[in-house]
Amino acid sequence: MYGFQYYTPTRVIFGKGAESRTAELIRAFGGSKVLIHYGGGSVVRSGLLKRVTDSLEAAGISYVTLGGAVPNPRLGLVYEGIGLCRKEGVDFLLAVGGGSAIDSAKAIGYGVANEGDVWDFYDYKRKAAGCLPLGVILTIAATGSEMSDSSVITKEEGLVKRGYSSDYGRSKFAIMNPELTMTLPDYQTACGCTDIMMHTMERYFTNGGNMEITDALAEGLLRTVMTNAEILVRDPQNYDARAEVMWAGSLSHNGLTGCGNDGGDWMTHKLEHELGGLYDVAHGAGLAAIWGSWARYVYQHCLPRFLRFAVNVMGVEPEGTDEEIALKGIEALEDFFRRIHMPTNLRELGVNATEEDLVTMAHKCAVGVGGAMGSARLLREEDMLAIFRASR
Amino acid sequence: MYGFQYYTPTRVIFGKGAESRTAELIRAFGGSKVLIHYGGGSVVRSGLLKRVTDSLEAAGISYVTLGGAVPNPRLGLVYEGIGLCRKEGVDFLLAVGGGSAIDSAKAIGYGVANEGDVWDFYDYKRKAAGCLPLGVILTIAATGSEMSDSSVITKEEGLVKRGYSSDYGRSKFAIMNPELTMTLPDYQTACGCTDIMMHTMERYFTNGGNMEITDALAEGLLRTVMTNAEILVRDPQNYDARAEVMWAGSLSHNGLTGCGNDGGDWMTHKLEHELGGLYDVAHGAGLAAIWGSWARYVYQHCLPRFLRFAVNVMGVEPEGTDEEIALKGIEALEDFFRRIHMPTNLRELGVNATEEDLVTMAHKCAVGVGGAMGSARLLREEDMLAIFRASR
Repeated sequence: MYGFQYYTPTRVIFGKGAESRTAELIRAFGGSKVLIHYGGGSVVRSGLLKRVTDSLEAAGISYVTLGGAVPNPRLGLVYEGIGLCRKEGVDFLLAVGGGSAIDSAKAIGYGVANEGDVWDFYDYKRKAAGCLPLGVILTIAATGSEMSDSSVITKEEGLVKRGYSSDYGRSKFAIMNPELTMTLPDYQTACGCTDIMMHTMERYFTNGGNMEITDALAEGLLRTVMTNAEILVRDPQNYDARAEVMWAGSLSHNGLTGCGNDGGDWMTHKLEHELGGLYDVAHGAGLAAIWGSWARYVYQHCLPRFLRFAVNVMGVEPEGTDEEIALKGIEALEDFFRRIHMPTNLRELGVNATEEDLVTMAHKCAVGVGGAMGSARLLREEDMLAIFRASR
Repeated sequence: MYGFQYYTPTRVIFGKGAESRTAELIRAFGGSKVLIHYGGGSVVRSGLLKRVTDSLEAAGISYVTLGGAVPNPRLGLVYEGIGLCRKEGVDFLLAVGGGSAIDSAKAIGYGVANEGDVWDFYDYKRKAAGCLPLGVILTIAATGSEMSDSSVITKEEGLVKRGYSSDYGRSKFAIMNPELTMTLPDYQTACGCTDIMMHTMERYFTNGGNMEITDALAEGLLRTVMTNAEILVRDPQNYDARAEVMWAGSLSHNGLTGCGNDGGDWMTHKLEHELGGLYDVAHGAGLAAIWGSWARYVYQHCLPRFLRFAVNVMGVEPEGTDEEIALKGIEALEDFFRRIHMPTNLRELGVNATEEDLVTMAHKCAVGVGGAMGSARLLREEDMLAIFRASR
């Protein structure tokens, strides 16, 4: 067991109609001029944006809007947002959407609160000394960015995707109304459930410093997400299932499921980032497509954890050798992915990767992690290539 | 499922040697003149207080000290602390100890930051508009006050015990080094484990608005505390077990295990408060002594929850009628209490209550809750008396 820090200052307002409290919360955190930042047109079409702007107007809070945050949000829009905030004297950011809008808003916040080029933070050149206060109205349960300290931005030139983490970027409040996630396409809902599970699983499969209570919380969370992801396949309008998944999404990435461990493995994420860089695939689906191949490649190096996962999360009967039980756990999770219509290999993901593509991705991945990375099993370039090959 | 708010802004620093960061954290939160508030002599004898004051001196942070916070901390000492803070220009409070020192420090913080009599807040007459910033070095795992919004103070005149809850009172940081809890007597350790479990169980046994993920987290937490409480009976110096219990104590009362429900039952606490008022008993032991009688009195009115508790927390085989399974779960928890040397009735608690005492306690309890209270089963004065009688 390692020591840890746990810091989740975000005020969560959860439930039906929670967005009606937006103006009150912005006021409470000192906001008087707001940039409302969002992604595509769905928050416009659904009427959510109108409801929010109406409520700000009624409360006498002025605002400007900036849409256009895309999956893998771009640096160009961040610069635009920074310029807009400076020009308009914005003192509070409101992200309306999912991880893309939130991460983009965090980057805008760093840019406004600090001198110089905001990309410096994402390029590991220096650290932010502050961030404009940020509130969130969440419409997609997936990334956990509403409570996390992280933000991932892509620089258009060379398509460089980088993350920056800082407690300054943790949002002041997060409004979570599960009803707002009901218009999401089924595929995106399943991708979100996968991403949520993977945030906890990346922390779970480690060779260092586990804590019994953290494991118990993680296992309970994973079982809950699986149960409710399957309910949502059959019944996407199920409020309770939406709520379970939404709250799990925040708890899965706010640090709770990693307390006491070595920081986690995170190689499934790293491998998927290369997939996402080369092909236009949804992040959650990419994770599902790569996980089984990763798991089979590493499980013998992290057997106690895969054994525990099989029994406590996947409900595998503890009969046979430890390796047999661990493998049954891996198969059971792949079966679950299939039941929620997630891919379990690149072909099912719709990717026909050439050997050359795989070599390129493995090389980029190895460079990106500084040569080798992984707690369940330390992976070098040749290991990454082997996993990519197995995932075809 | 109900909507909820979740707000846990406390920065937790958990692990061996965490107290070495005290000065740095006080600085980060703007403290320049500190009141160090503690309870009895144990923090002096253990050398902890000296280590803390040495580190503040090395960092150039001035301080004054005020000891003497007792279990059921007194209003008189709170007034003394308020006066001392005003006289010395204190701008930061550091509580070193368990719930008594923390609750007393919160009251001092309210008193310094607001005009008028601080008892007004505890007497439900008005609400605080702020609190002096507070940090905690935790030495007892039990009350969860290090992350909670609550503070319980006793007014000497008439021994009136009242709680006040406000987000202003949530501590800025909580330093948790499990080693600091190792000097606690075994009985107090077991009392702490009981109190921790009960904070989650009061939220678990309800007839309103449960959430699957909250239940899963609660059940995992309860199982973890039980496992490690038994380890500590045999091996009080076990660091990992101390750590599991300590972290569970914070998570059990910071709101996490109640998300989505109706607020909880809390009648075991209310009944125990009367016991604690009339007899000199430890809070955790009082809770253990009353719980079984409460549970048998209410379980048929909250059968699905007692059934689930029996199977998921106590590991009862789901064979027989629902009532039989529920009763086996109650018996199993009482067996656990006995194994950690906690009482399961008033006699084992060392209390020989007369019928008149029971009548008095039931009456005071009913008045205190405004006539009737309870989610698992609504209890009136005659119900409270019946439970007290059964607990003899």
